[in-house]
Amino acid sequence: MINKFLPITLLFYGATAFAQSAKNDKLTPYVKPIIGTQRMGHTYPGATVPFGMVQLSPETDTITYDQNGKYNPDVYKYCAGYQYDDKTIVGFSHTHFSGTGHSDLGDILIMPTVGKLQLNPGTASNPAGGYRSTFSHQNEIAEANYYKVKLDKNNITAELTTTTRVGMHQYTFPKSNQAHIILDMVAGIYNYPEKNVWTYLRVLNDSTVIGYRQTNGWARTRSLYFALSFSKPFIAHGFKNFTSGSVYRGFWGKFNQTKNFPETAGKQIKAWFDFNTAEGEKIDLKVALSPVSMENALANMKAEAPGWDFNKIREAGQQQWEEQLHRIVIQSKSRAEKENFYTGMYHAMINPTIYMDVNGDYKGLDQNVHHAEGFTNYTTFSLWDTYRALHPLFNIIETKRNADMVKSMLKHYEQSPEHMLPVWSNSGNENWCMSGYHAVAVLADAAIKGNGDFDKNEALEACVATARHRDYEGIGEYIDRGYIPDERSAVSVSSTLEYAYDDWAIAQLAKKLGRDDIYQEFIKRSQNYKNVYDPKVGFMRPKLADGTFRKNFDPLTTINQGFIEGNAWNYTLFAPQDPKGLIELMGGNKRVVRYLDSLFTMHLPDEFFAETEDITRDGIIGNYVHGNEPSHHVAYLYNWTDKPWKTQERIRMILKKMYGPTPDGLGGNDDTGQMSAWYIFSTLGFYPVAPGSDDYSIGSPAIDKAVINLENGKTFSIIAKNQSDKNIYVQKITLNGKTLNVLTIKHSDIMNGGELVFYMRSSHK
Amino acid sequence: MINKFLPITLLFYGATAFAQSAKNDKLTPYVKPIIGTQRMGHTYPGATVPFGMVQLSPETDTITYDQNGKYNPDVYKYCAGYQYDDKTIVGFSHTHFSGTGHSDLGDILIMPTVGKLQLNPGTASNPAGGYRSTFSHQNEIAEANYYKVKLDKNNITAELTTTTRVGMHQYTFPKSNQAHIILDMVAGIYNYPEKNVWTYLRVLNDSTVIGYRQTNGWARTRSLYFALSFSKPFIAHGFKNFTSGSVYRGFWGKFNQTKNFPETAGKQIKAWFDFNTAEGEKIDLKVALSPVSMENALANMKAEAPGWDFNKIREAGQQQWEEQLHRIVIQSKSRAEKENFYTGMYHAMINPTIYMDVNGDYKGLDQNVHHAEGFTNYTTFSLWDTYRALHPLFNIIETKRNADMVKSMLKHYEQSPEHMLPVWSNSGNENWCMSGYHAVAVLADAAIKGNGDFDKNEALEACVATARHRDYEGIGEYIDRGYIPDERSAVSVSSTLEYAYDDWAIAQLAKKLGRDDIYQEFIKRSQNYKNVYDPKVGFMRPKLADGTFRKNFDPLTTINQGFIEGNAWNYTLFAPQDPKGLIELMGGNKRVVRYLDSLFTMHLPDEFFAETEDITRDGIIGNYVHGNEPSHHVAYLYNWTDKPWKTQERIRMILKKMYGPTPDGLGGNDDTGQMSAWYIFSTLGFYPVAPGSDDYSIGSPAIDKAVINLENGKTFSIIAKNQSDKNIYVQKITLNGKTLNVLTIKHSDIMNGGELVFYMRSSHK
Repeated sequence: MINKFLPITLLFYGATAFAQSAKNDKLTPYVKPIIGTQRMGHTYPGATVPFGMVQLSPETDTITYDQNGKYNPDVYKYCAGYQYDDKTIVGFSHTHFSGTGHSDLGDILIMPTVGKLQLNPGTASNPAGGYRSTFSHQNEIAEANYYKVKLDKNNITAELTTTTRVGMHQYTFPKSNQAHIILDMVAGIYNYPEKNVWTYLRVLNDSTVIGYRQTNGWARTRSLYFALSFSKPFIAHGFKNFTSGSVYRGFWGKFNQTKNFPETAGKQIKAWFDFNTAEGEKIDLKVALSPVSMENALANMKAEAPGWDFNKIREAGQQQWEEQLHRIVIQSKSRAEKENFYTGMYHAMINPTIYMDVNGDYKGLDQNVHHAEGFTNYTTFSLWDTYRALHPLFNIIETKRNADMVKSMLKHYEQSPEHMLPVWSNSGNENWCMSGYHAVAVLADAAIKGNGDFDKNEALEACVATARHRDYEGIGEYIDRGYIPDERSAVSVSSTLEYAYDDWAIAQLAKKLGRDDIYQEFIKRSQNYKNVYDPKVGFMRPKLADGTFRKNFDPLTTINQGFIEGNAWNYTLFAPQDPKGLIELMGGNKRVVRYLDSLFTMHLPDEFFAETEDITRDGIIGNYVHGNEPSHHVAYLYNWTDKPWKTQERIRMILKKMYGPTPDGLGGNDDTGQMSAWYIFSTLGFYPVAPGSDDYSIGSPAIDKAVINLENGKTFSIIAKNQSDKNIYVQKITLNGKTLNVLTIKHSDIMNGGELVFYMRSSHK
Repeated sequence: MINKFLPITLLFYGATAFAQSAKNDKLTPYVKPIIGTQRMGHTYPGATVPFGMVQLSPETDTITYDQNGKYNPDVYKYCAGYQYDDKTIVGFSHTHFSGTGHSDLGDILIMPTVGKLQLNPGTASNPAGGYRSTFSHQNEIAEANYYKVKLDKNNITAELTTTTRVGMHQYTFPKSNQAHIILDMVAGIYNYPEKNVWTYLRVLNDSTVIGYRQTNGWARTRSLYFALSFSKPFIAHGFKNFTSGSVYRGFWGKFNQTKNFPETAGKQIKAWFDFNTAEGEKIDLKVALSPVSMENALANMKAEAPGWDFNKIREAGQQQWEEQLHRIVIQSKSRAEKENFYTGMYHAMINPTIYMDVNGDYKGLDQNVHHAEGFTNYTTFSLWDTYRALHPLFNIIETKRNADMVKSMLKHYEQSPEHMLPVWSNSGNENWCMSGYHAVAVLADAAIKGNGDFDKNEALEACVATARHRDYEGIGEYIDRGYIPDERSAVSVSSTLEYAYDDWAIAQLAKKLGRDDIYQEFIKRSQNYKNVYDPKVGFMRPKLADGTFRKNFDPLTTINQGFIEGNAWNYTLFAPQDPKGLIELMGGNKRVVRYLDSLFTMHLPDEFFAETEDITRDGIIGNYVHGNEPSHHVAYLYNWTDKPWKTQERIRMILKKMYGPTPDGLGGNDDTGQMSAWYIFSTLGFYPVAPGSDDYSIGSPAIDKAVINLENGKTFSIIAKNQSDKNIYVQKITLNGKTLNVLTIKHSDIMNGGELVFYMRSSHK
């Protein structure tokens, strides 16, 4: 089970001579997990395998509210637990979101120390006051499925690697008769005193511990079970419950529970394990996770990581990454380009995450344990982000996996008490974060593109039920009026726009299934975007229940203007399902070109910039906010005007400006891979402007050559002749030798295999 | 599954002509569940089937600490949720201990109301301020598996009945367009603000709700899952979370969650369901429980109570009680005697309780879900109480069930993180309440008496591992020194005495299995009782680590004298395994007779009485405390002196004084049936002074005739010729026609069937 995808990938790589040779070139050296860990990327530098259930990574700070209820305004920085600028590491925990803009997780924090036992983490300004340690980036290595750091305070080297469900730690200690490994069950990301609902620990023997952490956070009712195994028996262990206030202790006082007691339970538990270590002695430990039970966690460990060969686990995981990265092999003279691209591939293939034990058990939305029959269950669906380019990318390079993700969403729908498809789901929970019901776009896109053996009629039923859920976020008013009144919702305009797009996607699915009744209903709804456009001001604008537009309106500001993560300038362009209609609505070609030009070139005053969430100043071009997703299709809209070369220009500008192979290389949250998927598509020269359509819109390829190794054994090559930083304009395109006379290619063009040749030049004329 | 024991019982009742005829006499009319509900009995008046997982009963008050942390000094009265003197009923919950002296449970409280919705229970002094109602005993009926009461405030009649795993309610409403059924997930027995760890509710459809309640109480980490079904669809429902302080709400605010929302989760949840009712309209509801999952709760409901015939459920449960009560059929001219006896039988067969779903799933001590293979899993083992007479009673009339209880204890041992047999276990948890490790006596007694197909060697291993657990409550010191030093434990003397008895029981089991090594170890330990006897004062007495007796000592006081629930006067007689040796130790026959006489006749000054726990003034005879268990064998000790007639006299006095067919008819906590089992044995004329021995010590039978219908198809009859309130002395005994020359009968004498005839007279001479 260590490399469950190995047989499949070997099979299709074996099918083409190219892949065979490309396979010899290692691509993992181009993966730099450290990209995005500085400022707003919200990625983590630690170890994980593709779509792994374990994300084992260092925490540099995580607290949301301290014990006094004091809010930490910096908490947002710590969505992934790690900030590059920090000087201390608190410990290594096993679950992390990659690139999100809200957070949770950070479970089961482990920290090795020597000397006097300290159970509080200490502070960044005074690491000596707790168990945390100083560190420096000179002593830090972050690779795909491998992380290494020297913990300076105690001269301990920590190395981390993973399998799908097991995190493996290797700690190299100095000589000490006071070596400790701390297990902090209180720690967590976006933590606060009431977040832990309950924790349980049981010491099975002198080298095995099991337990669970039950939390109430972004995931409202979540339990994570684990099994922890040490390579060396500990000589003593202890527990402490840090719950403030009164704790019911019953008659447990008959035992001395603080030292070598076999179990504990409570809300705020920390444990420690004592060792004597020789100089340079390595102590390994493995932590297996399960969404279902401690027994399953033990079984997961046995199945995936039975032994103690750290390097074997590391290499097996890196081999998994090699297989994944080889799905698109690029040629580029620029190492930076390769690092950007393969790190993008890496970040795109972290999420969604597997949420299932080796035996197929998982926890459902209904709080019951289910067994996945014939599919792998996934979670971490940040769909507002990922419907745009990440799932479309999977529809090319990960069709089987994407079909399993669709099946996971359909199970979510079946098990959801609200009978809705996921909005933002994690760990058997729905958190309702962000807007729209974009799972429908993922389902429609997969169906339209012919991917997956999921039940299309069930998918349509789930889409329709979700889109007709009148009680959810203004849907009832939207159905009745064709828009959400400003009185009903603080994000009435963006939700109206997003629903309209989603409805179009449902209509496409209905059409494919011959359900004309549903097609008619939803194709009509898909035009609702027009209802919030105010031709007088030329923007989408909050509309009141009485049909008039709200007076208080500023198209530059993001706050309280009826939009989420975007201002009117950006959101007005959100009708990816109907660019032609939108252009007409906005006054035609000329006006829209001018609008787009203005967007990319105007200066957004600081007062408004401050309101854009998740974004550094680098994450913005003019007033175009690439760091947030609503504009991800915008640069491609020139293709529907008479200035498609401007698409090419803007794309190259965004690629250059927004992505770099440095810790601060992401201009905004990576958003579980959506930012990276945008990068991958745009680098290849095309983009799925409207998932649910089988068209890709042409941009400007930024590499010399790319070969997509398809799961069906075919390859699709993209060659950009003469491309360079200057030669960014497309003169001519041939597809399999024939000149392409449109600015789109079809999904089938790719999947049938072939060659797409761009002839690039330095001028658009 | 409604009456899972029916086939077995029919089989053996069919085997004897007597049983066939006795079966026609209904015995349930003699069961008065109201006995013990006043003062210290701690029984509950509600509905349950034999050993049922559901105990559906009214609560009159339950709070331990209020929201302000204020302690309610009356909480102890409410161990079973109900006090006869109270004037109001808060609601009806589904789990109750019977007769305990500490508490927990009271889960899933239901209350019907009409008029304005009120979600707080109100207070006893102001029931109008909440949902509780006044009631009177005139409008109350409590029978085996049936409870009825009129809720005066709203003129609603409530009726309750159960199956093993399902509680069924029938509410007769007045005409109202504001009828409500309240589901209070906050309510509980021994409740306090932090007791609820988490609760979850989900409305499946307009008449079905599922959920769970997770608590931290006497059972430290406990979850109870349930499914609730209404006979009539509700027209609306709502939830409210009463958690004080800040609650993380995430993005759930997109919905209006207060009205008709399908789910909720949190710590302090209450729900309500609205109906319109016609005058006299009945609304039924069923609540099925599961220790494992909501799905299993639904399956339990389907299996045990698929329909809506309240009377059928009631009658099926009462028929189960008939079968159980017929295991001993007595003849007595006194209705009071029959009520005492059959209510005793009833109270003896409530606990332990089944803890397993219909499919065999249960939650283990290791917090994992297990499947019971080939046995029924039980919980609620109050072993300090029940090893004395309740399990010995089961070894006569419930051998198969007792073997399953033993198997449940062995599974407990296997699954226990501490690798110990249960001390006081409930709901997959150990609470360590009370002293000793008396499960060993239950195991030894069952093995010695040849009952059950459990693995005897495994049982011995479990006993030995438990008794050698050095870290538990002074066992290490006990092993090293032969007694527990006073410095180590506040109950050093009683624990030393109890361990010595338990060790003797282990020795008996070892002997039976031919394990002489273990026999020698434990028979030696069983003499340790002598180590805490101070011949200078003639009492068992706290001994210091240096081997001297503690100076501060008062044999009358119960507090801080080295004893639990008993003073030195009572505990000094605790060596049931060796009455002969004890008498010798205490100075011989004459001194012990005088000691016993003094015990029963002295006056315990009020200052000392106040310290006896659980006891009303009626629960004490002289200084003999029958309401607590340590003296339960004491009246039989005269049998080892030259005054056995005094045993007969004392037994009859205790039977008369301590038991009556009235709400205040129990002189102390019934202790999950131990008090009742004492009554049953003593009424029949013999008692198991030392479980683990196959001897029963002769007392004075208090009925004219009793027939024990054994599971092996045989009957054992006890005839007390000429017995009356005056003729309490035994002149002669014949067993199967032969004169008995000893004051004991053997277990085999009973199990082989036969006739024991007592010839009674009014004088001992």
